[in-house]
Amino acid sequence: MVTFKVPVGISNRHVHLSQEHIDALFGAGHTLTKTKDLSQPGQFACEETVTIIGPKGTMSGVRVLGPARRESQVELSATDTFKVGVKPPVRDSGKLDGTPGIVIEGPMGRIQLEQGVMLAARHIHMTPDEAERYSLIDGDHVHVLVPGVRGGIFEHVLVRVNANYALDMHIDTDEGNAFSLVNGQELDVSFD
Amino acid sequence: MVTFKVPVGISNRHVHLSQEHIDALFGAGHTLTKTKDLSQPGQFACEETVTIIGPKGTMSGVRVLGPARRESQVELSATDTFKVGVKPPVRDSGKLDGTPGIVIEGPMGRIQLEQGVMLAARHIHMTPDEAERYSLIDGDHVHVLVPGVRGGIFEHVLVRVNANYALDMHIDTDEGNAFSLVNGQELDVSFD
Repeated sequence: MVTFKVPVGISNRHVHLSQEHIDALFGAGHTLTKTKDLSQPGQFACEETVTIIGPKGTMSGVRVLGPARRESQVELSATDTFKVGVKPPVRDSGKLDGTPGIVIEGPMGRIQLEQGVMLAARHIHMTPDEAERYSLIDGDHVHVLVPGVRGGIFEHVLVRVNANYALDMHIDTDEGNAFSLVNGQELDVSFD
Repeated sequence: MVTFKVPVGISNRHVHLSQEHIDALFGAGHTLTKTKDLSQPGQFACEETVTIIGPKGTMSGVRVLGPARRESQVELSATDTFKVGVKPPVRDSGKLDGTPGIVIEGPMGRIQLEQGVMLAARHIHMTPDEAERYSLIDGDHVHVLVPGVRGGIFEHVLVRVNANYALDMHIDTDEGNAFSLVNGQELDVSFD
């Protein structure tokens, strides 16, 4: 049972947008405005927000994360999905086949996303050096141990390895709240 | 590692009210109107709802559960608490010392609750017969195992034993959503 520490990053609902969709929502040729770097190098929170419109409800002020991606993607918590009325699956980022769509509205227009809504599968980002140190490879799954009165174990946590990553475990707000976690809290990773 | 199955009951935000507060919110001498029996014998969901008003926001349509209790109690998810702007502790039901208050509004009035807002500690209700069968006593803690892609383990799950109880594990919506659980789903309980 090898163990190491990983800091937690709790992701609120957010969208990643293709340049085509940035143009449609914010105006042709619009460039996203960075407000804050995120834990993963090159990734950033933007000044821009959108409204997502589902069959049962609307959520405004949904943060756009940059930079632009090849395909747009909407990451919601399950709590959010009940409000807007969509039933997305739990997915690894970028795996959009079979995910439901939703309407997105920005200040300059509205788009119908045909697919891309998901509950993000919990995962740990790490560099190849870190993966080698722990004898892990991209695609492995580990357990993460949570202490405290609302403690427990996250099982099936996907390990994602890339030279552009920084060590961080990403969960959504439901998962953070269920275990009373705070951003940056260090947790023990365990695997055989 | 003894195991048995327990069905899950996911509690949305709700309030329990004293008769004094029922009078203040719904009119003197008001009797709560049952709409649905809950899993625990004698407990029921009511037609009545209230609005809770915190320093940062308001939530309307919060369900009242009956019957009237000795002291009023507001059970929120952590997700809810961020919206209304309170920071309650994780507590066992009825243990209100040191919990924050909140404003509650009903159709006939408004009260300032001095204490009683909590994140409910996850727990399992069972009868003395069931407890004896599993060699558990009131106040014990067990683990509960969750299968699936968002699986894991709930640790420190309080066992509550009473002749008026029925076997059921109570968690809040954050905990249900974090583990993709649905009401009535049967989970394995594990303990040494």
